[in-house]
Amino acid sequence: MSCCRFQQCSRSLVIAIAMEAEAQPFVDHLGLKPVHDFFPAEAPFHAFQGTHDNCFLTVVTNGKDQVHGTGVDNCGTVPAALATFLTLQKLKGQVDLLINAGTCGGFSSKGAEIGDAFLTTATAYHDRRIPIPPFIPYGIGKVESLSTKQLASAIGAKTGICTTGNSLDMHDIDHLHIQNNDASVKDMEAAAIAWACELHETPHFCVKVVTDIVDGDKPTEEEFLENLHSASKKLQEILPQVIEYVCGKDHSEL
Amino acid sequence: MSCCRFQQCSRSLVIAIAMEAEAQPFVDHLGLKPVHDFFPAEAPFHAFQGTHDNCFLTVVTNGKDQVHGTGVDNCGTVPAALATFLTLQKLKGQVDLLINAGTCGGFSSKGAEIGDAFLTTATAYHDRRIPIPPFIPYGIGKVESLSTKQLASAIGAKTGICTTGNSLDMHDIDHLHIQNNDASVKDMEAAAIAWACELHETPHFCVKVVTDIVDGDKPTEEEFLENLHSASKKLQEILPQVIEYVCGKDHSEL
Repeated sequence: MSCCRFQQCSRSLVIAIAMEAEAQPFVDHLGLKPVHDFFPAEAPFHAFQGTHDNCFLTVVTNGKDQVHGTGVDNCGTVPAALATFLTLQKLKGQVDLLINAGTCGGFSSKGAEIGDAFLTTATAYHDRRIPIPPFIPYGIGKVESLSTKQLASAIGAKTGICTTGNSLDMHDIDHLHIQNNDASVKDMEAAAIAWACELHETPHFCVKVVTDIVDGDKPTEEEFLENLHSASKKLQEILPQVIEYVCGKDHSEL
Repeated sequence: MSCCRFQQCSRSLVIAIAMEAEAQPFVDHLGLKPVHDFFPAEAPFHAFQGTHDNCFLTVVTNGKDQVHGTGVDNCGTVPAALATFLTLQKLKGQVDLLINAGTCGGFSSKGAEIGDAFLTTATAYHDRRIPIPPFIPYGIGKVESLSTKQLASAIGAKTGICTTGNSLDMHDIDHLHIQNNDASVKDMEAAAIAWACELHETPHFCVKVVTDIVDGDKPTEEEFLENLHSASKKLQEILPQVIEYVCGKDHSEL
C-alpha cells in the first residue's frame, strides 16, 4: 500500500486516538510501525507511522496511566491536549491535517443512533463553567472544525457539534451546557485536541462513532461497555474510508 | 539578591502561576527577566528567570487566550498541564522542586477563611467522573504533594488537600466528589500540574491563598472578584517567604 516516503508524500496526516483498543486494529490494518523515540521519554504516549496511498500517516495514542497506577487508557482532555501539542511540535510545519478519531455518546434529540459515524462541524466544552463574563467564551472554548460536507456525504456520515467534558456520565448541569453548545455528540477529548491544533494552526476535524445514547434510558457506562466493541468495529470500517478520501484531495474538496 | 549563576545554584525551582496578575508582582519583586524563547513559539505561555539567595528560579505563567479571541488568562487544567510539561522538558533533569502558586476557593467546613494560605498535602480532581471501576481512581487522579509540615509551621500556613476542576462554580455533583476528596481548598489547575510533575518525577506542592468560601453564602464568582486583589497581595507576601525557606533546605527539611 506504500507508495511514497515521508518527504515525497503529497499529504501528512495525524490521527489522534485516545484509547489503544480503538487504535490498534487500524494501526495493524495499515501496517504502521511504532516509533519509540517520537515522544520525550517522560510522556506516556505512543506513535505509529507509515504510508498509505499518497499519504504519510502518524497515529498517536495517549498510552496507559502509570501516574496513578491504574494502567487504564489516559482518557480526558489533559493527556489529549499534551499528546496533540507534542505531536504537532515534533512534526512542525509538516502536518496538513489532524483527525481525532474515537467513540462518543450521541443525542437522540439530534438524530444520533448507536453505531452512527459523525464528522464534527465544531467542538466545545460543557464542563468549564466560569461565570465571569469575559471568561465565559474561553470556558466554552468553541472551535470550528474543517468543513467536511462532501466527505460526510461520500461515506454516509452524519455531521454535528461535539461537546467535550472529563466525565463519562452526564449530570443536569452538564446537560444544560451541552444543549447550549447545540451538540450532537459528547466525548472526553475533542475540544482539547482542537485547542492544541489551533495553537499550531493545523486544520482538524473529528470522526466519532456513537457507543451510547446519552439522552436515552440506560446509564452511559452500561451502554458504553455494551457497544464499545461494535462501535470500535464500525470505526475500523469508517476510518480507512476517511483516510482514502482525504489523502487524494485538497481541504476545499472535503 | 543574586548570588549564583544557573549552573552554580544549589537549587533550581519552578514556580507555576496560572494568572498573570498573580505572577507579575512576584516577578517584579524578585527582578526576574522574561525568557522569550523558553517555550516553543506555538505555546501561549511565558517564562521568567533569575536567581534569589542560592536558588535559580523559573516562573511560568499560562499566557492569554488567543485561540478563542477572549484575551483572558489561560486558566484550567489543559494549559496548566501543558505549560508544566514543556517547562520540565526544557529544564530536563535540572529542577529540584516545582511550586504551584495561586488563589483558590476554601471550605469553611475544613477551617478555611478568606486570606488563608494553604500548602497542599495532596491534589485530586472532582470533575472527572468515570464510573467504570478501573477508571475511577484514574479520574480522581490523586497525587501526594511533597511534605511541607515544617514550612507550613514556619510561615503560619494551613495544610490540606486541593481539589481541581475546570469550573469556577460548584454544583451538587461537584460538592459530592469534593467531599469524597476530603478537600480543604478548590482550584482549577493543581491536579493537572501534579500529573505533569509526576511524569517528570519532579517533587511538587502548592501554595494557595483563599479568595472565597465555596461552602458559604455568596456565589463564588462574586466573592472571588471581591477578594482577588487582597488574596493576590497575600500571595505576594507569602510566596517570597516560601522561596526563602525552601532555597536553603533539603526536601526532608520542608
